[in-house]
Amino acid sequence: MQAFIFFCQPVEAQEQAEQVGKGEIKKKMEVSNKYIVIKHHFEDAPKESDFEIKTETLDLSVEEGSDDMIVKNLYISINPFQINRMKSFSASQDVISYSTRITPGRAIDGPGIGKVVASGNNKFVKGDLVLGVFTWAEYCLVKERTIMRKLEPSEFPLTYHLGVLGLGGMTAYVGFFELCKPKRGEKVFVSAACGSIGSLVGQYAKLFGCYVVGCVGSQNKVAFLKDKLGFDDAFNYKEEIDQSSTLRRYFPEGIDIYFDNVGGKMLEAVIGNMNTFGRVAVCGATSEYIDIRKRASLDLVNVIYKRITIQGFLTPDLMIHHFQNFMIKTSNYLRTGELQVTEDISLGIKSIPSAFVGLFNGSNIGKKIVKLVEEEE
Amino acid sequence: MQAFIFFCQPVEAQEQAEQVGKGEIKKKMEVSNKYIVIKHHFEDAPKESDFEIKTETLDLSVEEGSDDMIVKNLYISINPFQINRMKSFSASQDVISYSTRITPGRAIDGPGIGKVVASGNNKFVKGDLVLGVFTWAEYCLVKERTIMRKLEPSEFPLTYHLGVLGLGGMTAYVGFFELCKPKRGEKVFVSAACGSIGSLVGQYAKLFGCYVVGCVGSQNKVAFLKDKLGFDDAFNYKEEIDQSSTLRRYFPEGIDIYFDNVGGKMLEAVIGNMNTFGRVAVCGATSEYIDIRKRASLDLVNVIYKRITIQGFLTPDLMIHHFQNFMIKTSNYLRTGELQVTEDISLGIKSIPSAFVGLFNGSNIGKKIVKLVEEEE
Repeated sequence: MQAFIFFCQPVEAQEQAEQVGKGEIKKKMEVSNKYIVIKHHFEDAPKESDFEIKTETLDLSVEEGSDDMIVKNLYISINPFQINRMKSFSASQDVISYSTRITPGRAIDGPGIGKVVASGNNKFVKGDLVLGVFTWAEYCLVKERTIMRKLEPSEFPLTYHLGVLGLGGMTAYVGFFELCKPKRGEKVFVSAACGSIGSLVGQYAKLFGCYVVGCVGSQNKVAFLKDKLGFDDAFNYKEEIDQSSTLRRYFPEGIDIYFDNVGGKMLEAVIGNMNTFGRVAVCGATSEYIDIRKRASLDLVNVIYKRITIQGFLTPDLMIHHFQNFMIKTSNYLRTGELQVTEDISLGIKSIPSAFVGLFNGSNIGKKIVKLVEEEE
Repeated sequence: MQAFIFFCQPVEAQEQAEQVGKGEIKKKMEVSNKYIVIKHHFEDAPKESDFEIKTETLDLSVEEGSDDMIVKNLYISINPFQINRMKSFSASQDVISYSTRITPGRAIDGPGIGKVVASGNNKFVKGDLVLGVFTWAEYCLVKERTIMRKLEPSEFPLTYHLGVLGLGGMTAYVGFFELCKPKRGEKVFVSAACGSIGSLVGQYAKLFGCYVVGCVGSQNKVAFLKDKLGFDDAFNYKEEIDQSSTLRRYFPEGIDIYFDNVGGKMLEAVIGNMNTFGRVAVCGATSEYIDIRKRASLDLVNVIYKRITIQGFLTPDLMIHHFQNFMIKTSNYLRTGELQVTEDISLGIKSIPSAFVGLFNGSNIGKKIVKLVEEEE
């Protein structure tokens, strides 16, 4: 589990690449490596034109006995939190790397699954499948600390390790069970409910015995939540004029738990519709990520009188104690078919910018992944 | 302790008064009774002209064997939360009575200390000193459920039961120790730090071993906190242009705990200056009570990345488990002189409106109390 502590350490592929060359290199083999960078920092919603594909020549040889490895990326996880690292005012290196500023012109680091193609580290051999923090690239130079774990062949597709059995699944699990502390029969509201995390939170809540309503941005998604994922109800917030009245309609007895992925006006409306001792797990705030004018103005009178708890969280803090339970329960739900997995997979390195931009205009349903190599796995 | 459950039940003195008359009345004695009402609901800062003093003739006789008692008020506690009950959009009867709407023209109920002058209830006799929810009046008709407890003669002044040994003290104690979960050496920020609750939170925090800074609205109060109450530092927010920079100056290592009595812009500034795993106990939001445009727009990115918890609370929820410890510890601190008591006492029923209005323009230092009877105690 210690690997989780390092989960968010940035990979400094280019810097490391420049340091290669000490000692004897047995075999030199170069490839053309495409990678994605931001051209500049930006503050609002991302556009494809904010990104650029670059090409470098990468030497695949590594010094034996060193900690250097070359990983060929198979799948890249596309996560909304990366937007906060692309801003000029994002945090500097001394803060956790969820918010470590991305440098324009340098490959963006993020969770992925790859295959070791060269290793100077004797714990890893060529052909190993690994989960870790790699780069938005075809290949990347990594060190052991950036690898979370080896992936052994299992009954589940590899991609599950980036979603339902990965960070997204863990976030849904610990956020819902540990922060929201649900009781059976409680009324649960989930925003961005078709997203990688929201879609799982709603299902965990239903399996646990709660009443669950999700909000999404299209009628297709409403139908998906109700028909495919078993939500009790769902609505398209874009078709509602007054979110507070809408919530009153869907929760005539009030909301006990809000799993917040969007922040902003929806959080304001939720606070007004919460029951006493309501709990808000703040997992994400995508509406605020791309427009800080959309910050939630909270009615603290309600927060006080209803004794509401609003809690931000990051999954790695909570995983040490809950990873095993999470894996056992979630794997079982997958085996019995009680948990539906929704993935939205694009193909090829060039699709990364549009995949990322799509997170902020609601184009994905479920976990967004880019598959880099057609034939692998 | 069960009495706390009933602490917030409104007294319906007038209604009850109208019901008097059943059965035999042994002795009829009438007094002229002055009481304070609001003329109308209002939404902004209170003005003295929003209030009115009325006079009624009150029959002091009660039916023996009934639950009726007449209490002569000695001290009235003046609390900011009452403002929320004076608004037209305040909650109706089905919500806890911290927010139960006050009816214009009817005596306002609130915590006080009185002397029983007539009792039909055999648990109370004439002359008993009682703490409970009475009215902003010279006399009031009460029932047993509105009495919190009898007050026996003790080493402490009666007024302490409305402040340091009463609701304010308990609020400071449970809010700080139970919600904020302090560790020694942590950095604590308190707003409205010269108020009845803030002044105690800061002292508890110092006694516990924290670093404590308070914010207040005048230089006199700054000096008071530092010289009399032992705060490590204090500032006058009215002299600061950018509260966020100010907080950075007073907390170069960040804030771990914020005991919030004011809400609004100060809460926004605090969130930006908090350390990871920071805790905010939302006790009051006076800046928002009188102007909802001043609501805090929270930076949820900080709430998430710093894993901040923001929690509203009401003291009665927490008291069952903590009352005894609170009383023992606080009484000891008072005996040793480690805890300074600050009271701000006005005299006479007519001073109630100005005493209440003064809470919102910073005129009081410490617990605001109106003493109704010069010669009593």
